Amino acid sequence: MQQNRKVIDLNSDVGESFGNYTIGLDEEVVPLISSANIACGFHAGDPSVMRRTVRLALANGVGPGAHPGYPDLMGFGRRNMDVTPDEIRDYVAYQVGALTAFVKAEGGKLQHVKPHGALYTMAVINPAIWQTVAEAIASIDRDLILFVLGGSNRDALKAMGKTAGIRIACEFFADRAYNPDGSLVSRREPGAVIKDHEVAAARVLKMVTEGRVVCANGEEIALSGDTVCVHGDNPSALALVARIRETLENAGVAIQPVGTFLQD
Amino acid sequence: MQQNRKVIDLNSDVGESFGNYTIGLDEEVVPLISSANIACGFHAGDPSVMRRTVRLALANGVGPGAHPGYPDLMGFGRRNMDVTPDEIRDYVAYQVGALTAFVKAEGGKLQHVKPHGALYTMAVINPAIWQTVAEAIASIDRDLILFVLGGSNRDALKAMGKTAGIRIACEFFADRAYNPDGSLVSRREPGAVIKDHEVAAARVLKMVTEGRVVCANGEEIALSGDTVCVHGDNPSALALVARIRETLENAGVAIQPVGTFLQD
Amino acid sequence: MQQNRKVIDLNSDVGESFGNYTIGLDEEVVPLISSANIACGFHAGDPSVMRRTVRLALANGVGPGAHPGYPDLMGFGRRNMDVTPDEIRDYVAYQVGALTAFVKAEGGKLQHVKPHGALYTMAVINPAIWQTVAEAIASIDRDLILFVLGGSNRDALKAMGKTAGIRIACEFFADRAYNPDGSLVSRREPGAVIKDHEVAAARVLKMVTEGRVVCANGEEIALSGDTVCVHGDNPSALALVARIRETLENAGVAIQPVGTFLQD
Amino acid sequence: MQQNRKVIDLNSDVGESFGNYTIGLDEEVVPLISSANIACGFHAGDPSVMRRTVRLALANGVGPGAHPGYPDLMGFGRRNMDVTPDEIRDYVAYQVGALTAFVKAEGGKLQHVKPHGALYTMAVINPAIWQTVAEAIASIDRDLILFVLGGSNRDALKAMGKTAGIRIACEFFADRAYNPDGSLVSRREPGAVIKDHEVAAARVLKMVTEGRVVCANGEEIALSGDTVCVHGDNPSALALVARIRETLENAGVAIQPVGTFLQD
Repeated sequence: MQQNRKVIDLNSDVGESFGNYTIGLDEEVVPLISSANIACGFHAGDPSVMRRTVRLALANGVGPGAHPGYPDLMGFGRRNMDVTPDEIRDYVAYQVGALTAFVKAEGGKLQHVKPHGALYTMAVINPAIWQTVAEAIASIDRDLILFVLGGSNRDALKAMGKTAGIRIACEFFADRAYNPDGSLVSRREPGAVIKDHEVAAARVLKMVTEGRVVCANGEEIALSGDTVCVHGDNPSALALVARIRETLENAGVAIQPVGTFLQD
Repeated sequence: MQQNRKVIDLNSDVGESFGNYTIGLDEEVVPLISSANIACGFHAGDPSVMRRTVRLALANGVGPGAHPGYPDLMGFGRRNMDVTPDEIRDYVAYQVGALTAFVKAEGGKLQHVKPHGALYTMAVINPAIWQTVAEAIASIDRDLILFVLGGSNRDALKAMGKTAGIRIACEFFADRAYNPDGSLVSRREPGAVIKDHEVAAARVLKMVTEGRVVCANGEEIALSGDTVCVHGDNPSALALVARIRETLENAGVAIQPVGTFLQD
Repeated sequence: MQQNRKVIDLNSDVGESFGNYTIGLDEEVVPLISSANIACGFHAGDPSVMRRTVRLALANGVGPGAHPGYPDLMGFGRRNMDVTPDEIRDYVAYQVGALTAFVKAEGGKLQHVKPHGALYTMAVINPAIWQTVAEAIASIDRDLILFVLGGSNRDALKAMGKTAGIRIACEFFADRAYNPDGSLVSRREPGAVIKDHEVAAARVLKMVTEGRVVCANGEEIALSGDTVCVHGDNPSALALVARIRETLENAGVAIQPVGTFLQD
Repeated sequence: MQQNRKVIDLNSDVGESFGNYTIGLDEEVVPLISSANIACGFHAGDPSVMRRTVRLALANGVGPGAHPGYPDLMGFGRRNMDVTPDEIRDYVAYQVGALTAFVKAEGGKLQHVKPHGALYTMAVINPAIWQTVAEAIASIDRDLILFVLGGSNRDALKAMGKTAGIRIACEFFADRAYNPDGSLVSRREPGAVIKDHEVAAARVLKMVTEGRVVCANGEEIALSGDTVCVHGDNPSALALVARIRETLENAGVAIQPVGTFLQD
């Protein structure tokens, strides 16, 4: 367990613009985070946006990561598609490879992979998908880190990664309420999203320093995250990231790309 | 000059199927060639087709290459698009990266890059595009070889590659008539395509062993190709490849992936 | 009930080629059928293929129909996508409108709409989707006929169409085994597909003349189809269509576009 | 000539959002215009955006028009593609048909077609493209009006439309400088775009009431536009539309959909 560590990673989805379409406040959020989940052209992003975003990440010392999704630009990768494990493996490999080219060309090294949208959601429901993704990644580069939603199944997911040959980073969601089993409260439930910035920032600090979180029902559970998921798609989200960052720094917690401190 | 060498590469476009659509006789042509130009999902190919084709190439000892094209599946990448140099650079990087992932995952190493369709044609007309592509490739992997149409400008293209930091392989077209300046006779001219398999095979052998080709006007010119472009999209094309292979082997010429013998 | 009628429609999916990709034996199958389900560019087909296929249908006196699918060319519309009813409504309207333009331009009138692939399959499972599609169609042109899979729920589906404001045509599958409730035997079960052309043709004739079919378990049930689904994607499928046609004609059954005889 | 008429049309490109991507201030600009050029899914727009935009136009008494473009979402239809006349014809038919379905479903009637981006620009350079588009439209619905850039070739374009069987509306650009031959000053030239709202509004009024415009070189020429192209993609553009509208109304000029007043 890592309850006493004084370092954490902040990750955010970026590079989701496409052609003439701009989305997200990438220029503002990237300086505040330490890992960037960069869209790879299937659900969002295009080759020129990818290069621009990789440059932005590297210029800010932010760990570049691939954010692969389903081939559904119209649905932004948020709609589940009935794909096979082989299709998932191949879609992930394709997108990770494409982003790797830009990271190499810009003088960096790809740090991690975080599945996007429905692919992430389906993997939470069916962990065999995490395994498919882990194996796809391991076959390309064993230095890569896979971001997963980790709750009570943290140890199982870490072991799965070890078997596949890569490291697993468990995500903590700064603005989401948790159930006692370490899963997220569904967005359909009241209180699923924590809107008070102070509360959210305090929760992140508690998770980082104590490895614990207070659940929606008041119960406190152990929960260790290696990286904290934040957002940069609107000014309020940005303000929350700034608040989290300030809270952590004031408490002496370092914010660094997960690849710099994650153990096996 | 390489007139006396006894080794040559045969390359063909493969992996152009997409989803439910099958095109090309890949299973038949790959065992006959030594380098495979594999479509990367923009003008043809999809992630699963790419993996399958990479496997096929590696299983046959064929050098895997990326065959990037314009983002125009409906036009099969054959229609020119008014793209900027930066867009070309980024489209090439994306596709080369995507294919690299499959080659790595399947235990191989990407050998070369051959631009497809209108991108290739436009580069022949405007060599600044070769340079853009060469620089894009060099920024990813300096071991990669760029396939170009080389005639009287062979030395200039080789020098351009050296400046960019990669090797250049000049293509010879087995079934195309040449002009005295080393360019191809336009398909709109009569006799542009050489249909007699014996004649085509003899021309390839002469180019390989003597570094010379007889032009459409009867004039004989010096022409050195590092790799010979052949096709596998119909039974007659396949028969031509087999005939070329047999002719070369009977003459003691080895057929090998260009990366195994190409000098700087 | 229509047990004694002497007219039936034969429909087949056509126009599924795309760009440089050819699929299906459209030239051969269209002269054998009376209604054509023409892909509309989402799962297959492109604008030029659509025009060509509409021309082919009209030249053969075949009723042109739209064959809308999910926006998933890579999966050929066969993978379910988690779309909303509004999205289904809009995707159907878009594709029906697009095909209508070609039918008008070529001097015809759109006869029917048959959902494709996963959209069809999901509607069979969840009839609310039939209703969504029916309402989408009715809002465009109340003369259009919707093709559905009709078994024991035939009357309910016909009533649903009447409420929406359009006619419903129930499909009979020439080469599929049926369950006693009028549903199709799953393709995962042995015997789901009837491979003997004589048997299949005799089943079609029995359904047309008697309104009955012998189920997989030997039980005979009442089953009325307005149109028989056949295929044209390979020579064997074509031979079956020819055999069905001959069997029906020998028995004095007329083969006509469903729009010429379908009652409300 | 129509120098003395007191009615004009204001048109703007709308419905250019796509999936999760929002572009343009459609809600604000539509109440200020009288004709809407609605993207049709090739360069921008998706089925749900199209329906929403059609509803918005009809609710404001604005004439709905199709805004077909090249199949290039990544380039927003602004990059020329080397397409054939048949492809242009088919792409236009497809998109016009698709939008027609939504207009019908929402209880309206499609008023016009305005080619988008590179398709428009190429037609200005090569008027054979206007003819291809005009014929494509005429084959679908002869009530449709084609929007073109009309300068000194106004009469020729009107005659071309008459031959094809449809009406032509010539556009006047509110914020663009003109050459003495009635063409637009290239955007690469200084002063190509008129930034002063008062000046732009006064120019529109002069064109409407006098049929004349002062060129970039100071020369005054006759120029008759049937519809004025305005923009709604940013607050300043919106302010210009409001200013033009106010100027026209204060001068007693009515603003109406072009279909309500355009002669043959």
